[in-house]
Amino acid sequence: MKKVSILGATGYAGVELVKLIANHPQAELVHITSESYTGQRLSDVYPHLLSLCDKLLESMNDLDSILDTSDVVFVALPHGHAMEVGKKALEKGVTLIDLGADYRFDDTNVYEDWYHVKHVHKNAPRVYGLAELNRKAIKNASIIANAGCYTTTSILALAPLVKNHLIQLDSILIDAKSGTSGAGRSPKQQTHFPDFYDNFAAYGACTHRHTPEIEQAFSHLAGQKVMLNFTPHLVPMSRGIFSTCYASLVEGVTKEEITKAYEDLYGQEYFVRLLGLGAYPSVKEVRGSNFCDIAWHVDERTHRVIVLSVTDNLMKGAAGQAIQNFNIVSGFDEKLGLPLVPMYP
Amino acid sequence: MKKVSILGATGYAGVELVKLIANHPQAELVHITSESYTGQRLSDVYPHLLSLCDKLLESMNDLDSILDTSDVVFVALPHGHAMEVGKKALEKGVTLIDLGADYRFDDTNVYEDWYHVKHVHKNAPRVYGLAELNRKAIKNASIIANAGCYTTTSILALAPLVKNHLIQLDSILIDAKSGTSGAGRSPKQQTHFPDFYDNFAAYGACTHRHTPEIEQAFSHLAGQKVMLNFTPHLVPMSRGIFSTCYASLVEGVTKEEITKAYEDLYGQEYFVRLLGLGAYPSVKEVRGSNFCDIAWHVDERTHRVIVLSVTDNLMKGAAGQAIQNFNIVSGFDEKLGLPLVPMYP
Amino acid sequence: MKKVSILGATGYAGVELVKLIANHPQAELVHITSESYTGQRLSDVYPHLLSLCDKLLESMNDLDSILDTSDVVFVALPHGHAMEVGKKALEKGVTLIDLGADYRFDDTNVYEDWYHVKHVHKNAPRVYGLAELNRKAIKNASIIANAGCYTTTSILALAPLVKNHLIQLDSILIDAKSGTSGAGRSPKQQTHFPDFYDNFAAYGACTHRHTPEIEQAFSHLAGQKVMLNFTPHLVPMSRGIFSTCYASLVEGVTKEEITKAYEDLYGQEYFVRLLGLGAYPSVKEVRGSNFCDIAWHVDERTHRVIVLSVTDNLMKGAAGQAIQNFNIVSGFDEKLGLPLVPMYP
Amino acid sequence: MKKVSILGATGYAGVELVKLIANHPQAELVHITSESYTGQRLSDVYPHLLSLCDKLLESMNDLDSILDTSDVVFVALPHGHAMEVGKKALEKGVTLIDLGADYRFDDTNVYEDWYHVKHVHKNAPRVYGLAELNRKAIKNASIIANAGCYTTTSILALAPLVKNHLIQLDSILIDAKSGTSGAGRSPKQQTHFPDFYDNFAAYGACTHRHTPEIEQAFSHLAGQKVMLNFTPHLVPMSRGIFSTCYASLVEGVTKEEITKAYEDLYGQEYFVRLLGLGAYPSVKEVRGSNFCDIAWHVDERTHRVIVLSVTDNLMKGAAGQAIQNFNIVSGFDEKLGLPLVPMYP
Repeated sequence: MKKVSILGATGYAGVELVKLIANHPQAELVHITSESYTGQRLSDVYPHLLSLCDKLLESMNDLDSILDTSDVVFVALPHGHAMEVGKKALEKGVTLIDLGADYRFDDTNVYEDWYHVKHVHKNAPRVYGLAELNRKAIKNASIIANAGCYTTTSILALAPLVKNHLIQLDSILIDAKSGTSGAGRSPKQQTHFPDFYDNFAAYGACTHRHTPEIEQAFSHLAGQKVMLNFTPHLVPMSRGIFSTCYASLVEGVTKEEITKAYEDLYGQEYFVRLLGLGAYPSVKEVRGSNFCDIAWHVDERTHRVIVLSVTDNLMKGAAGQAIQNFNIVSGFDEKLGLPLVPMYP
Repeated sequence: MKKVSILGATGYAGVELVKLIANHPQAELVHITSESYTGQRLSDVYPHLLSLCDKLLESMNDLDSILDTSDVVFVALPHGHAMEVGKKALEKGVTLIDLGADYRFDDTNVYEDWYHVKHVHKNAPRVYGLAELNRKAIKNASIIANAGCYTTTSILALAPLVKNHLIQLDSILIDAKSGTSGAGRSPKQQTHFPDFYDNFAAYGACTHRHTPEIEQAFSHLAGQKVMLNFTPHLVPMSRGIFSTCYASLVEGVTKEEITKAYEDLYGQEYFVRLLGLGAYPSVKEVRGSNFCDIAWHVDERTHRVIVLSVTDNLMKGAAGQAIQNFNIVSGFDEKLGLPLVPMYP
Repeated sequence: MKKVSILGATGYAGVELVKLIANHPQAELVHITSESYTGQRLSDVYPHLLSLCDKLLESMNDLDSILDTSDVVFVALPHGHAMEVGKKALEKGVTLIDLGADYRFDDTNVYEDWYHVKHVHKNAPRVYGLAELNRKAIKNASIIANAGCYTTTSILALAPLVKNHLIQLDSILIDAKSGTSGAGRSPKQQTHFPDFYDNFAAYGACTHRHTPEIEQAFSHLAGQKVMLNFTPHLVPMSRGIFSTCYASLVEGVTKEEITKAYEDLYGQEYFVRLLGLGAYPSVKEVRGSNFCDIAWHVDERTHRVIVLSVTDNLMKGAAGQAIQNFNIVSGFDEKLGLPLVPMYP
Repeated sequence: MKKVSILGATGYAGVELVKLIANHPQAELVHITSESYTGQRLSDVYPHLLSLCDKLLESMNDLDSILDTSDVVFVALPHGHAMEVGKKALEKGVTLIDLGADYRFDDTNVYEDWYHVKHVHKNAPRVYGLAELNRKAIKNASIIANAGCYTTTSILALAPLVKNHLIQLDSILIDAKSGTSGAGRSPKQQTHFPDFYDNFAAYGACTHRHTPEIEQAFSHLAGQKVMLNFTPHLVPMSRGIFSTCYASLVEGVTKEEITKAYEDLYGQEYFVRLLGLGAYPSVKEVRGSNFCDIAWHVDERTHRVIVLSVTDNLMKGAAGQAIQNFNIVSGFDEKLGLPLVPMYP
């Protein structure tokens, strides 16, 4: 049994983690924190947890004692808040799994440029926690940077093509769509129900912070610097990410080579389901699960490939992936404690 | 042409009024106010109005000059704010149409009990602005109290049965359901998109302020005091109210008498559509229009009648009804400037 | 390990059962049937099950061999189809859990009157499968009639008050609201997305077949015949039932007696959560779980009680309840294999 | 007054046309047809039209007499059905406005290749009915081919850039999203409410028929053949199209040139609203109106431009555009009879 704590348990990703830990046979939840609701029960904030998690929310002011009594700490805080935790966790030998961006970048200058926050833990030993691409490193990590929701969905979609240089690396465009839980739990005008119901909009064109994260992953895979466009949109639904990824094929690449690249990379992966050439995934088919479903289309007229991928942003895009990483670093079966069957309809 | 001003133009009812006034052939919009957005253009707050209403929002601090240049003033402010306006409007001979509750009650003690606000204009000459029941009085009114959204839908549903004493007056129950625009424009946790999508909830059981307003109307119609239960619910949709009204039939009352009561009261009404015995209205069938559709069912086993009625809460339940009243008091055709065909699908 | 088969695996309740059986540590799924999709894989019909249940769908023509290799058979077929299965299952000593209405009525005339189908297994030994009220009988049953979705939600809401005669038994009104999955998987005009999005409607007023089922349960509890009104509505959401139940209090009944009645009946029940006096449940707080959340309100003015209850119609209202019954009849922990934490948001 | 008939009045575009004609001061509706509902009243099929359009639906078998008594005929039928109507309308001097694809292509081989229907009216004098690009030709046309919904939204988005050769013509990608009314009125599994609620999916990648229509328009504007990728998606909402359009800038093109191109082409257009550089349109801001709102973003890192445009697919994308064309060909003010203010929220 691992003793587990969650810092930032009242955001949507945090509360999803609580749910998963509650079902995990090898994890015991010891501390949950919230600065806004310190002293209240989690089930006061989220009544769906009544009788399931009536634990008191603590403050991060007690970080030392939290770390001293935990084996693993999940951080589900806004970016900028994990670095101080990381320093201490490292000292104390506690494993840290961060759902935010603080430890995602090799080059902390990139982080500082896009996030406008000073990086205060530059030399941290850290691994990028996208298991399908980085499993070995995760096994022995002290600090695991969970990949972002859009980035997970988009990187997994194109990784086989980038890695095998089947596409022109300067031609990548990612048009992504997210359910509104991706925008967080704080009420805002744009996500006020009457304003966003029966609505659809883009945001963050050219400027979204998941752009450099995807670029970093592709640059590693390709062995050369990759730049691309990433455009996020908000869909009037709760959960789910849909990435539509475009790229021009390298001349002469065949459909068979494309299919083989996917099968080679993901053939043994439980949480990546390949729907294949010409298929259509949908976000409801992965809702509540840790799956990433992928399909691809080849346009003979324009010599482009279009890859479609879907995840549940709170699961494979956040809390589910964090548990997957927790299982890997703990030496457990990767699926342990994860709900396997999507909720449909 | 009537010179018209709208106090509180940035709430949902206010902006719907702007839309209707913009289409009204006999109204000219002279002032719009908002205390939160004073000095901004309305289309900055509501981009859908770009090029249609780029008027500057003023403050109510300038109330005197607003009144001096207006023939009619619509008040779409939270309750408690119309009374001072009403006093001045009366002095200056400006007609006031209030979409709030301040002038709805004959007995201002009832208002004070349910709204917890002191009534400061108790002797105001005022009429209850539900045209189908009170048209004559509206024609010559100085201060018109628009009926509430739930109340309009519920009163119209049962008025024929109450007036003709076809139901037992102590047996009335109203179970009402509203789209989320009824909860107003301010973002709140409950109406944050991810929280309320795919959700349904009740609120205000036994305590909702529309209860005494419905009771007042039924007491007038019946000639005796009526008390009832009213339970509102929130539906994950934008607009629309659905009232399911229950009552026990007075012994011996036949289906034919029920139908006749509806036809007698509403046979000549343009904005009430009688779907008849055994039919089912739906909120989408009146969306964007000023209609109230009504159907009824008789249960022979339990001797109860169930009446179903629907409106668009921002139209017949607020701005549309206000324009209907404006037309009546101005001597115009009651339909003038109102969009007649619902938006479907 | 119990060998389990599901007849009618491609309806929404059937596929939810597949999901639950897939997660159940003491059940092995041996046969799934569908007359429309015989010979296809379940994951061809429901791609969310890809790699999770790629089993072939069989026909019920092979009923004998299905029964011969099963310990328990779940029937998730339209009403009228379980009785022939029941006869054979009884002969062969296979436990039958029917999610339909065929075995719900003590008096098969009531079934024939409301369902317009001849009952062909009138002498069947059967128990009504609402565990919270009938657990002992379920333990030793051969044929278990799962309660309906609306009925489960509504019966649990009022059972303590009916049983203790705290309410006037001729005053009961139930206004219920369901997500659209309750209308089944077959595409229809009313539940076509553009028609029902942003819409709300009632149906089956005075005639819905869950009426006599609720009446039967209350009659048993009260020890006298109970008649009531039940009005279902469709809400533009996927899942969830919300029942708003009204009744007049017997004179002199206090709030404390009401609360005590709920605590006495449900204090030990895992799957009933009492939110208490003055609280508000919401359907999202039980989504994907087997919980029924209940709250109540007392109107001092009208001497009525208003009880609010919610379930997930495919879980506690169908497949979850069926698994609960399966666990009881199999001697397992009642929670075994059931997802405990609702999916939120 | 123009005498107007609508062939195919019971599809979503047809019934929207009925709504618009009902509000049009210079049009009289003389015939409406439906092969599925011949002999019924339109308000039996669409109860929202009760008391507004209770007209009987006729069959197209009476086409001659329909044409003989009409000045203008709108065709809102599936593709393949307008050509026979067009031949006769031409003979009889009746103006035809087709909402389908039959007359959209200069090269009827393209039509035959993508639509798999033989073109039987190849020499028809016809004009492409996108007013902002083709107004002069529309004025004197006999047969007007209304542009498609996706195509209108996408062509308007990029036309200024294509026309002025500011973008690389082989780099165009259009990622489009539509509300479900775009999928038509016939119930299907994919658009069954429980299946598509809280869902999102792509379809028709590389093969959607609006692709060659957009290519034709851009080829005309550019003076050279243009090929592109167009990927449509379905959004869980009723109405609205959102096009996200990508292209690489020609070297040296500045933001100012881009803005100027939009202002030059659309500066005088009532129904195109330019939100400008860096802005974000949303589909709700044009709902129920004939507007197309456009904004653009320039990525300095990748030298791409991203253009965002929105329409209401049943208005500017279908019936509204048809009325705009009707007004032009009739010599009326282009806005006549069109609802100007979007419905928000």
